[in-house]
Amino acid sequence: MFVNRKRILIEFGDCDPADIVFFANYFRWFDDCTTALFLAAGLPVRNLFKSYGVMGIPIVDARARFITPSTHGDELEVESRITELRKSSFVITHRFFRKGELTLEGQETRVWAAAHPTESNRMKAVPLPREVIEKLSQNAKPAGRKASRRGARSHH
Amino acid sequence: MFVNRKRILIEFGDCDPADIVFFANYFRWFDDCTTALFLAAGLPVRNLFKSYGVMGIPIVDARARFITPSTHGDELEVESRITELRKSSFVITHRFFRKGELTLEGQETRVWAAAHPTESNRMKAVPLPREVIEKLSQNAKPAGRKASRRGARSHH
Amino acid sequence: MFVNRKRILIEFGDCDPADIVFFANYFRWFDDCTTALFLAAGLPVRNLFKSYGVMGIPIVDARARFITPSTHGDELEVESRITELRKSSFVITHRFFRKGELTLEGQETRVWAAAHPTESNRMKAVPLPREVIEKLSQNAKPAGRKASRRGARSHH
Amino acid sequence: MFVNRKRILIEFGDCDPADIVFFANYFRWFDDCTTALFLAAGLPVRNLFKSYGVMGIPIVDARARFITPSTHGDELEVESRITELRKSSFVITHRFFRKGELTLEGQETRVWAAAHPTESNRMKAVPLPREVIEKLSQNAKPAGRKASRRGARSHH
Repeated sequence: MFVNRKRILIEFGDCDPADIVFFANYFRWFDDCTTALFLAAGLPVRNLFKSYGVMGIPIVDARARFITPSTHGDELEVESRITELRKSSFVITHRFFRKGELTLEGQETRVWAAAHPTESNRMKAVPLPREVIEKLSQNAKPAGRKASRRGARSHH
Repeated sequence: MFVNRKRILIEFGDCDPADIVFFANYFRWFDDCTTALFLAAGLPVRNLFKSYGVMGIPIVDARARFITPSTHGDELEVESRITELRKSSFVITHRFFRKGELTLEGQETRVWAAAHPTESNRMKAVPLPREVIEKLSQNAKPAGRKASRRGARSHH
Repeated sequence: MFVNRKRILIEFGDCDPADIVFFANYFRWFDDCTTALFLAAGLPVRNLFKSYGVMGIPIVDARARFITPSTHGDELEVESRITELRKSSFVITHRFFRKGELTLEGQETRVWAAAHPTESNRMKAVPLPREVIEKLSQNAKPAGRKASRRGARSHH
Repeated sequence: MFVNRKRILIEFGDCDPADIVFFANYFRWFDDCTTALFLAAGLPVRNLFKSYGVMGIPIVDARARFITPSTHGDELEVESRITELRKSSFVITHRFFRKGELTLEGQETRVWAAAHPTESNRMKAVPLPREVIEKLSQNAKPAGRKASRRGARSHH
């Protein structure tokens, strides 16, 4: 399955009075990492409507297990991986490392969503196209590794 | 000129490792207070397009003077006031009080903006309609006071 | 088990280009709601060190299931409930309602944490004191209902 | 005077329903850029107490002029420059460029602050030490340019 890596420098404003990252920020970074993964896989989120007619990839479930805290000045490397491809949804697993040590592990479940046929402000899950499945199924090496590097570069 | 008041409870996640509000959050609250002021003045921002054909009230200048810090658990009362009405822009002054003491004073300048005639993703300042000028010029008392209370109530 | 309710007005700045709440913000509100619940239960988080010698209640797991999106102007009522009390940790379940309809359900697991005996910047889970267990076990009615109302009032 | 450059990739979650950066986020980036500038100047903010006995560099004034909006996917280059050194305070000017075009200009005024002699949770401005003045006065070239590159690299 497709893998991407992204670096995050933790800033002062990301931390709370306990001098560690305020936990909600990790979920913000989940979103950033998913954007980077899709871009690296050749599926820029901004163009999903033009390319595939879908409105987006809304999140339906998110979870995280916080292992060790991090603070400002720390650099984290996030490894984001497609870990499950279902009919019209998929799971992305994000693992945050600091100097090689796992500090957090989390998951997002997102759906491939078209406009709702009758309700204007809602969406409706539709099957993932074969081409998208193929892009998200690319092996991490050697193609995945190259793509991942490109993704990382373009994101810094 | 029109005045509105809004209460803000400072939360743990609004504060930084110095155990005080991370200053960028005050500008987030400026926006919330401007939304509340417009609602109280009978100009809900969500309906500006439908009511007046404008795209919104984008900000062109923001500034704040930080007098004393606040921390989680503090309740601030913000007094937001239209302090200047120009041809196609206006100034809102926000004053943050904690137990009656002024802790911050800031200003936003915003424009009354229609769709740009030729560029799809830009806006263009247009003159404020007379009705909007009147609503934003309402005296703080007695009508303003009532509106302000209604605004405050509906926002908590 | 103890229950508290808190209202949240969704602001423009809480929403993303899809015109719905950016999902990470819900986790910020989880924290606000937990603070409010503890306050309503007679356990203000700011005083936990003074009262019980613990450093805080750090989060070790958070998860949410997003059911329907909300947008700016919506008012949500969050019902936060202690749903599990373990030896040195506990689970809080947050349910977000809009006009009575459930829009999101989530959980936080937190630990009762003292300073780590040897590492200065880490914490160590310790058993929940009996008094804290009793406060968090208060029945929702009639005492809980009163406490909840007080909590809600003091938070707006 | 000392200059540093930092790149910012605008993320989806930084943007609001108008599909542009929510303006308060620029002030968050001001802080990140000031941290980067100090690090590049040889004054890591985390060590100011150990090195100079000061508590920090709290902000007393911030302002921004918003020229053109940016959106997710845009990469901005921020040029941060010490533009004024006073006895116990200083001004940093941040200019945000997108593809060479100026999109925003802002300023922060910060003070060099020691613990307050009598009030435990307040700070007091004290004179900038000569060594700090020298570091912040370094010419942008050639030494400044090198420092700036190092700063930029270490921050991505």
